[in-house]
Amino acid sequence: MSRTLTTALMQEIDHGSRDANLCAIEEGLREVAAGGAQLVLLQELHNGPYFCQSEDTQAFDLAESIPGPSTERIGALAAELGLVVVASLFERRAAGLYHNTAVVFDRNAGIVGRYRKMHIPDDPGFYEKFYFTPGDLGFAPIDTSVGRLGVMVCWDQWYPEAARLMALAGAELLLYPTAIGWDPADPDEEKTRQREAWITVQRGHAVANGLPLLACNRTGFEADPSGHGHGIQFWGSSFAAGPQGEILALASDRQGERLLVDIDMTRSESVRRIWPFLRDRRIDAYEDLCKRFRD
Amino acid sequence: MSRTLTTALMQEIDHGSRDANLCAIEEGLREVAAGGAQLVLLQELHNGPYFCQSEDTQAFDLAESIPGPSTERIGALAAELGLVVVASLFERRAAGLYHNTAVVFDRNAGIVGRYRKMHIPDDPGFYEKFYFTPGDLGFAPIDTSVGRLGVMVCWDQWYPEAARLMALAGAELLLYPTAIGWDPADPDEEKTRQREAWITVQRGHAVANGLPLLACNRTGFEADPSGHGHGIQFWGSSFAAGPQGEILALASDRQGERLLVDIDMTRSESVRRIWPFLRDRRIDAYEDLCKRFRD
Repeated sequence: MSRTLTTALMQEIDHGSRDANLCAIEEGLREVAAGGAQLVLLQELHNGPYFCQSEDTQAFDLAESIPGPSTERIGALAAELGLVVVASLFERRAAGLYHNTAVVFDRNAGIVGRYRKMHIPDDPGFYEKFYFTPGDLGFAPIDTSVGRLGVMVCWDQWYPEAARLMALAGAELLLYPTAIGWDPADPDEEKTRQREAWITVQRGHAVANGLPLLACNRTGFEADPSGHGHGIQFWGSSFAAGPQGEILALASDRQGERLLVDIDMTRSESVRRIWPFLRDRRIDAYEDLCKRFRD
Repeated sequence: MSRTLTTALMQEIDHGSRDANLCAIEEGLREVAAGGAQLVLLQELHNGPYFCQSEDTQAFDLAESIPGPSTERIGALAAELGLVVVASLFERRAAGLYHNTAVVFDRNAGIVGRYRKMHIPDDPGFYEKFYFTPGDLGFAPIDTSVGRLGVMVCWDQWYPEAARLMALAGAELLLYPTAIGWDPADPDEEKTRQREAWITVQRGHAVANGLPLLACNRTGFEADPSGHGHGIQFWGSSFAAGPQGEILALASDRQGERLLVDIDMTRSESVRRIWPFLRDRRIDAYEDLCKRFRD
């Protein structure tokens, strides 16, 4: 008995304002719902620009409370259209305390869970440690009407530990809202290596855990508002992989796209029967994974 | 300052006897040494057939002590040719106590370390739990004149935990002797998924740890001596990847091959500066990696 879940990845450019972005999201949700989507994954921080290109105290004005006006608007659409929606917001938890938070809406049940980004990057153009307090909710999947979702955010996608912890907690699908792109000054061969590495490491999580995976990345060029950097060309390439890491769908690296992908949610069972990795983990020998370095 | 390490992957068929296999290895070592190789990776259990296709007490006769005649022969070649060699043997440790063991020879220093396969598979055609006691030496890299080597074996290659523990212990290169192949009865699309998954998960380890990686797999068809199975078509495809998971070389899936690959051993430093994953690991939240399941 197969159980097909129709998913949608909504890869967008920044439309210039919160309202314009939410209008594009509304239009997209209506379109993919009409196409049969049951679960929709939005990209990281979809309500605005990727503001972490510079460190600017004014950018904290972009943060929102959860629940708040944006979750009300997206939640109402999820209810109206009968969708599970994974959204990504700049969460204001208190004055001086902000998170990069994914929020899951389940049809008319409203918000059924949130995940606060656990691994926070900080590199030129991605100054996230300035803005986001590391998550304090751990790697806990979120139960929905379409299954138990292992929702993480962007930089988490490079960490096999995160995917494994979600799998060990019974996640049936791994999902990553993302905002990653190229430094336009990098040569093409380096750009290719970076994008391939990003796809490959996530496909590896699918393989290692026998789970399907969705990644939704933003696209388009965004200038550095400080004028110091080259800006970021977000590389899109949102994709879906099956539990053997096989690519099921892959979006453009240059433009917005609404990708509908059918996932057979029963394949993890059969894949894990031929590749029973969870059976043979050497949990007696993994203790040092909790060390910073083994020196 | 780049530091290039010339490596060789010796992908072979089973030549029918220990002596014939060791003769082929000797010929190969001479060839790749003449080609400039400094480090040679042999495939898993290269001295004989992949005997784990059936459970047969007579097959324990294939096991060898370490040190023993095979390590003397390979060690003498490593010394003569000035090579670091990673070999893979069926180790007899005591009556009724056997391991699947990688042995590292360093030029004229002899055996400088061994690694006993930690994760042991057991599936139709791969009855390894009957033969091999799980390793008790942990995930400890081996220091050699060409660098600190993170040597693991076959099934280990599916476990991100193993690669990470080697990286955390300062491994500069991940190496996997392997014997993996297709069930000839599987359809072509499943074969493609399996081989791609095998390559992808290992490239993922390279990415997640910012380390180059070598995998050397056997090739050729080997019948099931019990006559119960379809035999195994070992898929070769030995490969080398750089620290962004980029493929540097890939062997045939159908025949023996001696692949020479130059690895720039200084690239990990620069790749880890742009992708400092080790900096941001949430070691405060990884404790459950030592659980069987989080239920």
